[in-house]
Amino acid sequence: MHAVDLIRKTRDGEPLDSAEIRFLVAGAASGSIPEAILAAWLMAVFQRGLTLPELSALTEAMRFSGETFDVRGPAKCTVDKHSTGGVGDKTSFLVAPIAAAAGLYDPMISGRALGHTGGTLDKLESIPGFRTGLSLDEMRTVIEATGSCLVGQTATLVPADRTLYSLRDRTATVESPYLICASIMSKKLAAGLDALVLDVKTGSGAFLRDPAAARFLATLMVETGERSGTRTAALLTDMSQPLGATAGNWIEVAECCALLQGARPALSEDLRTVSLELAAWMLSLGGAAPSVEAGRERAAELLTNGAAWECFRKTVAAQGGDLRVLDARRTQHSPGARTTFRAARSGYLSRIDTTTVGWAVQRLGAGRVRPGEPIDPHAGLAVHAKLGQPVQAGEPLYTLFAASEPLFAEPLALLARAVTITEEREEPPALLGEVIVRS
Amino acid sequence: MHAVDLIRKTRDGEPLDSAEIRFLVAGAASGSIPEAILAAWLMAVFQRGLTLPELSALTEAMRFSGETFDVRGPAKCTVDKHSTGGVGDKTSFLVAPIAAAAGLYDPMISGRALGHTGGTLDKLESIPGFRTGLSLDEMRTVIEATGSCLVGQTATLVPADRTLYSLRDRTATVESPYLICASIMSKKLAAGLDALVLDVKTGSGAFLRDPAAARFLATLMVETGERSGTRTAALLTDMSQPLGATAGNWIEVAECCALLQGARPALSEDLRTVSLELAAWMLSLGGAAPSVEAGRERAAELLTNGAAWECFRKTVAAQGGDLRVLDARRTQHSPGARTTFRAARSGYLSRIDTTTVGWAVQRLGAGRVRPGEPIDPHAGLAVHAKLGQPVQAGEPLYTLFAASEPLFAEPLALLARAVTITEEREEPPALLGEVIVRS
Repeated sequence: MHAVDLIRKTRDGEPLDSAEIRFLVAGAASGSIPEAILAAWLMAVFQRGLTLPELSALTEAMRFSGETFDVRGPAKCTVDKHSTGGVGDKTSFLVAPIAAAAGLYDPMISGRALGHTGGTLDKLESIPGFRTGLSLDEMRTVIEATGSCLVGQTATLVPADRTLYSLRDRTATVESPYLICASIMSKKLAAGLDALVLDVKTGSGAFLRDPAAARFLATLMVETGERSGTRTAALLTDMSQPLGATAGNWIEVAECCALLQGARPALSEDLRTVSLELAAWMLSLGGAAPSVEAGRERAAELLTNGAAWECFRKTVAAQGGDLRVLDARRTQHSPGARTTFRAARSGYLSRIDTTTVGWAVQRLGAGRVRPGEPIDPHAGLAVHAKLGQPVQAGEPLYTLFAASEPLFAEPLALLARAVTITEEREEPPALLGEVIVRS
Repeated sequence: MHAVDLIRKTRDGEPLDSAEIRFLVAGAASGSIPEAILAAWLMAVFQRGLTLPELSALTEAMRFSGETFDVRGPAKCTVDKHSTGGVGDKTSFLVAPIAAAAGLYDPMISGRALGHTGGTLDKLESIPGFRTGLSLDEMRTVIEATGSCLVGQTATLVPADRTLYSLRDRTATVESPYLICASIMSKKLAAGLDALVLDVKTGSGAFLRDPAAARFLATLMVETGERSGTRTAALLTDMSQPLGATAGNWIEVAECCALLQGARPALSEDLRTVSLELAAWMLSLGGAAPSVEAGRERAAELLTNGAAWECFRKTVAAQGGDLRVLDARRTQHSPGARTTFRAARSGYLSRIDTTTVGWAVQRLGAGRVRPGEPIDPHAGLAVHAKLGQPVQAGEPLYTLFAASEPLFAEPLALLARAVTITEEREEPPALLGEVIVRS
């Protein structure tokens, strides 16, 4: 088999068979196929797309390119949630403990802040002592003890994705829905899931702002998951404004702790709604509820009655996190400086360029532009107003937190560009959109 | 400027400006842009194409990526011919001396045999002593003395093409008409031409069999040449059968010597016609004739009256070739073995898969599959019948020459597959097709 012949096929829209795709993925993982060859193939895929059998074969070949993880016991179903990313997107801290509290296993493997979105691992590491870099054995121990783990990708899982992702980043082939799907799904499926719920964001803070593109990616991921034997559903949810009441690191953890203790602050209601809907599908597909409707009730119950809070505390403790700070949340938050972003005029908060808000949060110190940069666990912003709401000129819209005053200038300018106040009220997009399941 | 941003533009069909294209070509020539990045860009070009300004900028950037050649004096016009390649395609040995005899300069830079086509350099090197590897200074000396030179590409001309061509070969991006055009035209224009005539082959022995694809490539090359200030015309000519009476190395040189000495063998008439038509356009575009019609007459005169023969002898002598073998042509041809390929049935010689005939010639020892393989100067075949002609069962169609008998088995089998004899006569394609000039 010669790689150049396979490129020629993809280039001309002729499908590859599974053996041919495995040859390319094995070559990527081992380094036996030069990067130039792989780059040409990735661009051919970008331009021509893949058939569903090809996409499934690519995902499976990547999934099995290294070690895999499996904690499925005779009684436990393994489920997970994956989000395509947004601003203030902190549902993981709610859905993982709800799933655990419902008697499921959730091996939640997450990423770091990059670009305009925050990273679940960075948020978790704002809890003193919390270790996200567990080995597969440690993951298994934590899950068996607490029902979930909240960890980073290990070096041994899906090595082919590291090669291909680095190459996509350098060759302008990141945005292909087929390559996005294979990258996400290979990593999720390598964790040995029975069921997977995808939170596909749409709107101004999403990576795929175009609803049709988001829906297409969702369809590809659902089909790929189902072809691998994992029950998969995708929920299209709105990212036209930061989700919940906070965007940053520690402040997002703290917001979730309050919800897990049964609080119902109005500004967190959208976060609570999306999280319960994701959890409802996880419980239903994972067999912990007879229907989505039943899953919705059960999830709300586990969130309200403190069961999920107990599970979260156990997982945090098992991963080395200091439980005292979870209880003393106010004193834990100690930014060096704070300021207020106020409404420039009176009217209705009608539109927010949420990606720009994400960049403002990043510039406050909560995120990073390049991998490896340090982040400030205390930086971020608190939200005081939601889309569709009337505001008065001078009214606080966001409180900003950073290490020092000079860091506020750029984020304040970004927010001024990001927020649109209009005289007439505009109806915000629906929070929950279409649900994609295999037909 | 970042290469990945340029790939993204081409990927999305957004044109690059000249500076951006120069950045990529300079990076290819110097090695400062990694091959993976260039490979992704080449595949994006393959899929998306280029605008004419982009193609022109690419060609010019490649043309000036190394040294250039220039012999233009105040009185001499520099012209050249380029063929897209075929079987028995030996017009260079006729048109270069005709151009020289007409008072023009022709710095003919040619290639070696590869795949199913022969190589002008290999054919020339069948003349004992003939040196094709001249320096730019030596080229200038030979041209100023004889009006033409017949040489190989030097290492210093168009280094960007070597990088990109090698990469295209490995990444299945060879067949892009845009990339073919830039490769051919950058090398031709680096020789400092006032006028260029392109022989774009169509039919079963051409690299681009599809007439529409050949015509499109011709249009791109004419436009690119004209945009660089070189008068350019492309002649679509038929390659549905080997051109002339021979295919090989020395036997092709010998066939041309006979024509240059005024002979008119019937089997060489197609070669003579195509060569005179190419020369007519070279003389006309190069200012040595007031019109193509006048160029046609002048070219025939220079071929018939021995003037072109004298120029050819001078060039061969100036490049170290032994003139005695040009005069004693029969004794020079000493293949180790010969055999005859005969008509399997009676009827009309209606179709020839000329690419397969080319492979037969290559397998006889006249060509090579990989660069650097040795070739046999005596190997090849002599043609005894042309398309459209009635043949009797058992009548010789080709005489085959090789170093030894065992080399005949595969070529004979290839020829048996290549030749179609039918009961009804089929009209052969016209030898001379459309002429493409800038409108």
